[in-house]
Amino acid sequence: MSERSKTGPPPGPHFERRVPEGDSVERYVCGRCGHIHYSNPKIVVGSVVVYDRNILLCRRAIEPRKTYWTLPAGFLEEHETPEDGARREAREEASCDIVLDGLLAVYSVTHISQVQLMYRARLRTPDFAPGPESLETRLFAWDDIPWNELAFPSVHWALHHFRECEGRSLLAPFTNPPGKSGRPG
Amino acid sequence: MSERSKTGPPPGPHFERRVPEGDSVERYVCGRCGHIHYSNPKIVVGSVVVYDRNILLCRRAIEPRKTYWTLPAGFLEEHETPEDGARREAREEASCDIVLDGLLAVYSVTHISQVQLMYRARLRTPDFAPGPESLETRLFAWDDIPWNELAFPSVHWALHHFRECEGRSLLAPFTNPPGKSGRPG
Repeated sequence: MSERSKTGPPPGPHFERRVPEGDSVERYVCGRCGHIHYSNPKIVVGSVVVYDRNILLCRRAIEPRKTYWTLPAGFLEEHETPEDGARREAREEASCDIVLDGLLAVYSVTHISQVQLMYRARLRTPDFAPGPESLETRLFAWDDIPWNELAFPSVHWALHHFRECEGRSLLAPFTNPPGKSGRPG
Repeated sequence: MSERSKTGPPPGPHFERRVPEGDSVERYVCGRCGHIHYSNPKIVVGSVVVYDRNILLCRRAIEPRKTYWTLPAGFLEEHETPEDGARREAREEASCDIVLDGLLAVYSVTHISQVQLMYRARLRTPDFAPGPESLETRLFAWDDIPWNELAFPSVHWALHHFRECEGRSLLAPFTNPPGKSGRPG
């Protein structure tokens, strides 16, 4: 979760803020060619990952909130499903292989235009290690979680929501029908 | 849902595709100043809206799939929650006021980098009318739905998923704790 979530600067030298014809919202529009630059909310994907009832946290090696603890989470890439993104982030930040167990929560962090999809997951094996964006990775029993050193409010929320439904099956929303990517035909 | 969902052209004249240091994916990077332009998947928000067991569909007045039937849905705007976005799209496309009833589905359409959040909703009153992006808006009994004239695969999926849990309560994922926006402090 980095600073690129902010509404950005003009995408090029000739762009100005105005409401395009037929639209109702101000956009960056190129004063030369009329090209409309849409900026969009960002999708963050992450997981509450458990092993033996202990929860995996990563201590951030990067700003913002460097040295604070977070869940394995980050920006969804283009052409990636949220589930694949959540697994990739766990691999990148904690060098681990996770098995997803349903969508735990959908959070909106509107001041930075983020929608966060948080999954419930477990470690496939007890192997994990810090990736380049983590200083340290560790399994915590609930009572040992460093509550005062968590990186973001949504890390608190996700942990508490995880706790609220621990041991129960999640009735997550539907997803793509098997084998369907949404490509027409 | 428009063509702006494609991976775009370079954001400015000096941008080139390369993998930034410490990254693993090709991005547009400015050859002059090193600015990295991240492009991100887009979030579509929409609803299966019912009134008296009939389903509200909108006939598209715009490309792509002009004249085909769709759900009220569109791109989430910056600084908007998905729930607010789904209500706004219903207002814009069908001039109606809807009450959301839980997150029905999360679809990935990876070839155009979309994540679609589809809610279940009902009309607050039986008032609706085409907005500027719709040619026609209409309530359909299940058996009268124009199955061969639906705009997108995910419209089919959402209708069938709606049908699968009709009359039952949805156990949707958690959302922000009451009154919490994710702003620190």
